[in-house]
Amino acid sequence: MPRTITVGAAQLGPIAREHSRTQVVARLLALMHDAKACGCDLVVFPELALTTFFPRWYFEAQSDVDAFFERAMPGPETQPLFDAARRLSIGFCLGYAELVEADGACGQARHFNTAITVDKRGVIVARYRKIHLPGHAEHEPWRRFQHLEKRYFEVGDLGFPAFRANFGEGKAGTFGMAICNDRRWPETYRILGLQGVEMILIGYNTPVHNPPAPEHDALSHFHNQLVMQAGAYQNGSWVVGVAKAGLEEGVEQIGNSIIVAPSGEIVGACTTTGDELAVARCDLDLTASYKTTTFNFARHREPEHYRMIVERKGAVPLDDAE
Amino acid sequence: MPRTITVGAAQLGPIAREHSRTQVVARLLALMHDAKACGCDLVVFPELALTTFFPRWYFEAQSDVDAFFERAMPGPETQPLFDAARRLSIGFCLGYAELVEADGACGQARHFNTAITVDKRGVIVARYRKIHLPGHAEHEPWRRFQHLEKRYFEVGDLGFPAFRANFGEGKAGTFGMAICNDRRWPETYRILGLQGVEMILIGYNTPVHNPPAPEHDALSHFHNQLVMQAGAYQNGSWVVGVAKAGLEEGVEQIGNSIIVAPSGEIVGACTTTGDELAVARCDLDLTASYKTTTFNFARHREPEHYRMIVERKGAVPLDDAE
Repeated sequence: MPRTITVGAAQLGPIAREHSRTQVVARLLALMHDAKACGCDLVVFPELALTTFFPRWYFEAQSDVDAFFERAMPGPETQPLFDAARRLSIGFCLGYAELVEADGACGQARHFNTAITVDKRGVIVARYRKIHLPGHAEHEPWRRFQHLEKRYFEVGDLGFPAFRANFGEGKAGTFGMAICNDRRWPETYRILGLQGVEMILIGYNTPVHNPPAPEHDALSHFHNQLVMQAGAYQNGSWVVGVAKAGLEEGVEQIGNSIIVAPSGEIVGACTTTGDELAVARCDLDLTASYKTTTFNFARHREPEHYRMIVERKGAVPLDDAE
Repeated sequence: MPRTITVGAAQLGPIAREHSRTQVVARLLALMHDAKACGCDLVVFPELALTTFFPRWYFEAQSDVDAFFERAMPGPETQPLFDAARRLSIGFCLGYAELVEADGACGQARHFNTAITVDKRGVIVARYRKIHLPGHAEHEPWRRFQHLEKRYFEVGDLGFPAFRANFGEGKAGTFGMAICNDRRWPETYRILGLQGVEMILIGYNTPVHNPPAPEHDALSHFHNQLVMQAGAYQNGSWVVGVAKAGLEEGVEQIGNSIIVAPSGEIVGACTTTGDELAVARCDLDLTASYKTTTFNFARHREPEHYRMIVERKGAVPLDDAE
């Protein structure tokens, strides 16, 4: 029996700062209903899907930052998503800002850029906390807008855990999650690939304009596709990349949500900058064609020659004197 | 002063088994002269550029295999390449089968799939021995043709060494080499990237038909471009990929030689299946735009989360019981 999953990439248009969680959740629910009507088993939402992309602003007061974070998942405003999952029998992957309350006398609250996967019973089956935080930690007023992820979030502490889940027909599959900037790093896909991942769920918020390198702006779609297509092919995995799109609080987001086959081919895509669902039927068994041949890691990888990848963080340019 | 290098990707059409080294070297010399006329500082030849791609055959006798190997570099037949480099003041990168003679009583001859880079003085400035050997080690008669690299070569023992060299105007640059199947592995580019590589020279022989996975055949150009474009972008490096092309001893090679900018964009390409030169002017300083922003490794990499890349060779699929 083919292990086919019908996946919906549920792109979101802009979310204004003034929009309430309830307003946003209503949009997510509408997309879940659309997805169900299209036969989807699983819906993937973007990174930080419950609010505007707040790292674009510098806030003096931590309370202003914390207002964008969830203290419980599900919480009162997000419970309807879990209810809908159970009622519609449809899974979802959701990105949100996660605040872990301080525990004990000397504990500090912790802040993560998080994604969860919820199964068709409405149960959280996996959690991932973003590891590759882009941007900067200090206020840089010269930028037209900030990208303060390194200020507002900690580096994720859960690694890149793959997980088994069953969303479709037939047997279970192996899934993984990554968030936004993670998708530019081949290490992300490889660590999931080494766990046999068959489908990687990636939400993102990517501005078209990159203040430190505006010369890349015109290539933002090309780069977005390139990294996910390469990550899919080089690990023989499906990749579902889902964007926040459109002009959000004056900042243009790239959109360009895509679903990529283990061949690296794009098999589904959003073409608007608003709320939009792209759907693809994904046979998880198509991964085997790559995992057992060109990318049979056990046969072809040579990890004894890869040590520099873990022993070195930054590049160490060669010296002319060497 | 911009650090601009004019590079020629010197694709080769088929080389028959009966062709002598002298015949092949004459073709390489013609390409070097063409390259000089185009203002090239550096010419890149394919993998195993001196002979037909012999791993397509199973040989019982080691002497039949060894006939394709070079015992000295330069040797009598290859010396004219070094002389031309010096006379024309043009560097070259050459792939060949390297036989290291046994040393001492209990030594065994060693066989590598090797590339060297030679500078404008005709001096070998770097050597690389292929690490990712594709194919198989035992004769598999069911294949229309063999791919016995794992039988005829050892895994390279030099790592992925970047090196400084000066081929163009202005100051020196940082170069690296990789060979054929190496280019499909993101680890290859990353290890060179961690040494600050600015231009990666890659020769290859890739059959269109992959006997264990014929379903990939129609995607061979797409995959070829995808991996080199991703490797370039994700490390902010130029990539020069140069093929053996055309119908060689009954096996169709993909050709599709390309020169890729640090943006991942293709800036030069061959379009025939014969001897052909693609030329691009490459400003090594364009690498900085990527190395200092999105791919500033020191700021953004998280190697403590990458350990699985070196601790695990093959994928370890998750168990449903976990």
